[in-house]
This record gives sequence, C-alpha cells and structure tokens, in this order.
Amino acid sequence: MRMAELSRRSGVPIATIKYYRREGLLPAGEPSAPNQAEYDQSHLDRLRLIRTLRDVADLPVAGLRDVVAAIEDPDRSPHDVVGAAHRAIDARGDVGVDAADLARADAVVDQAGWQVEESAPARATLARALAALDDLGISTDEQTIQRYVDAADTVAVAEVESTMGRQETASRDALVTSVVAGTVLYEQVLTAMRRLAQEHHSANRGS
Amino acid sequence: MRMAELSRRSGVPIATIKYYRREGLLPAGEPSAPNQAEYDQSHLDRLRLIRTLRDVADLPVAGLRDVVAAIEDPDRSPHDVVGAAHRAIDARGDVGVDAADLARADAVVDQAGWQVEESAPARATLARALAALDDLGISTDEQTIQRYVDAADTVAVAEVESTMGRQETASRDALVTSVVAGTVLYEQVLTAMRRLAQEHHSANRGS
Repeated sequence: MRMAELSRRSGVPIATIKYYRREGLLPAGEPSAPNQAEYDQSHLDRLRLIRTLRDVADLPVAGLRDVVAAIEDPDRSPHDVVGAAHRAIDARGDVGVDAADLARADAVVDQAGWQVEESAPARATLARALAALDDLGISTDEQTIQRYVDAADTVAVAEVESTMGRQETASRDALVTSVVAGTVLYEQVLTAMRRLAQEHHSANRGS
Repeated sequence: MRMAELSRRSGVPIATIKYYRREGLLPAGEPSAPNQAEYDQSHLDRLRLIRTLRDVADLPVAGLRDVVAAIEDPDRSPHDVVGAAHRAIDARGDVGVDAADLARADAVVDQAGWQVEESAPARATLARALAALDDLGISTDEQTIQRYVDAADTVAVAEVESTMGRQETASRDALVTSVVAGTVLYEQVLTAMRRLAQEHHSANRGS
C-alpha cells in the first residue's frame, strides 16, 4: 500500500509517519517509483504498536526507540522483548525506593513462587505501591496480597501459554509485536474490568 | 502536629502543603497561636491521598479538586466517591470511542453480569482497549476475555467486602480516603504482579 493508505488504516497522520521513519521507528518501504514506496502489513502492525505504546502506555519517543530496537534485534527472544517493553514503560526503575520496601516486595514475589530478575521494573512498582498502602494504613495482610497474586498468576499463565501457541505459526516480528501490544492492552482490559466489577459489587452492597 | 512535622511525615514539601491549602485541597488546621496551626491525622491522610493520586494516578489539580469535593460532601456514599475518583482519573470519558466499540464493551460487561452506569469511564477504556486489540489482530475470543473477567471479579468482590467490613469502625472520611487510595494503589499492585508473573512464566517456558 502507499503512504496515504498506511496513514488511513493506522490512524497515524502522514507527517507523523514520516517523523517515525526519520527516527528509525518504522522500516523503509519498498521503493516503487521515484519518491514513492510500498508498505505492507508489517508496517501497519508497527504503526499500530507505536500508537498503542504512545497512547496507552504514554511512552516517549526514547522509550519507543528502545522497544523497536529490541523487536528488530533477531537475537532477542519474545521474552526479552517484553522485558525491554516493561523497562521502557516503567523507566523510573527503583530510583528512590527504600531497600526495606524492595525487600518487602521481594518477599511477596518469593512467596508467590515467581523468579524474576533484579532489574524487573515491576519489582520497584510493587514496592512503591505496598509502601504507600502501609503509609495510608490500608491493609496489606497476607490473605489480601495472596488474592492479587492468584489473579495475576492466573492471567499471566494463560497469556504466556497463548504466546507459546502462536510461536509455531507467526513470524517472530508479528509475534513480538502482538506480545508487546497485548501486554499493554490487556493490562488496560484488566484494570478497566476491575473498576467495572468494583462499581457493580459496590452498588449492589448499597455502600 | 505543626506544619513542619506534617511535611516530614507526609513527604510533601511545606510550600506544596501551603499551595494545597490555598487550592482548598487540604482543610485548615486548628489555630494554636498567631500564624500557627495544629494539624492531625486527617490532614496527614489527606496529604498522603493527594500524593498517591498525583504520583500514581497522574491526577492534575483539577482532578484532585473533584475527588476532594466528593470526599468532603457528606451526602456522597463511599461508592459515589470512588466513582468520582474513577471519573477524575480517566477524564477522557468516551470521547472518540466508536458506538460499535462501546456496544462491544457493553456486551462484555453484560456477559460478566456487571451492572454499571453508562457514565462509568472504565466502559470507554475497555472499549478502546478491545478495539485496539482487534486492530492488531490479537485474540479477544470469549474464553480469553472470560479469564480477565474472572480475575477482575474475584479481586473486586474481596475489595468491596473489605470496605464493608471497615464501614462499621472507621469514620466516613477515613473510610473514603482509604477506599480511593486503595483503588489506585491496588491497581498498581495487580498490574505489577501481572508483569512479574508474566516474566516468571515466560522465562520458565524458555520463550
């Protein structure tokens, strides 16, 4: 397809597509005539991924560059690429998190039976949230925490299995694109559903 | 406690506390001497809530004002206050969401057995995320969606029950403060845990 159709189908303005090309976020099209190029499904998928990471995960261009570099590195597994996306999305890392709060989060992760790298940014996010809950005197007892562990574990197992299932049929590029986008978008699905379920149950109990 | 201690214990700088006072986000302290006031636990809780809503939920001052107004309106139930917080956090509403996408989200909500108001912003968030998944060709089949519904429903039921349990002992102000903060912070806990669980299971499967 031409640039105009790529723009129409991706919902990304032509000027923005040209900007992404210059920034190296979108591979070149196939030259078809002087000053003209043909784009295909892979370009469309890439643009939709960039849109998702920008609009949903608020990723700045530097973060987009990191994710695209990971996608385009053939030596990196889908697992690695998702890790790169997580690090780009939560670029704060563990800056400003107390060692004691990190240790607390590690204990929760151990208890859940999850083995994760020290650099996983979600560790620091969990530590920050647990510390803030404690500050506000909101219960974080073992039973409460276990409920979130169970919910998170259940959806994650299904997500990883679904990725495995597609690994045999999809191209690596299509697979990692959909895994990264799915990670971000299903997070939105899960949090939106939690709010809807809260509203329903809360109204029902007449609180 | 004096302003200096309030600042130290809340982690909010004195200049910022004064700004919140002027903006009506923090009630006045009890005058104790000329140019001096005493603050109590309720001020500390309010500042911690504001910090959480700003740092974690990225709420602008206008959004903070809406949430504080809901908290301070004695006619509003905890359920109403959480609704106001949700609306402030996701202020986009359903602007720009296709009617067909909203209908799709409504069908999911119906299927889940949740009754929610049309104005619930999470409806539009869900609609946007499902539409983006479809655009990217990522599966949103019934079985997949059901897994998120189950996870969201399980944590929401427990959250609402825990609020009910506290309703008999806590003051209304303390209760709504902790419900709003808990909604935001446990969302972080859940999404951080999902990422950690994904990392664990994905590494285990050698993807």
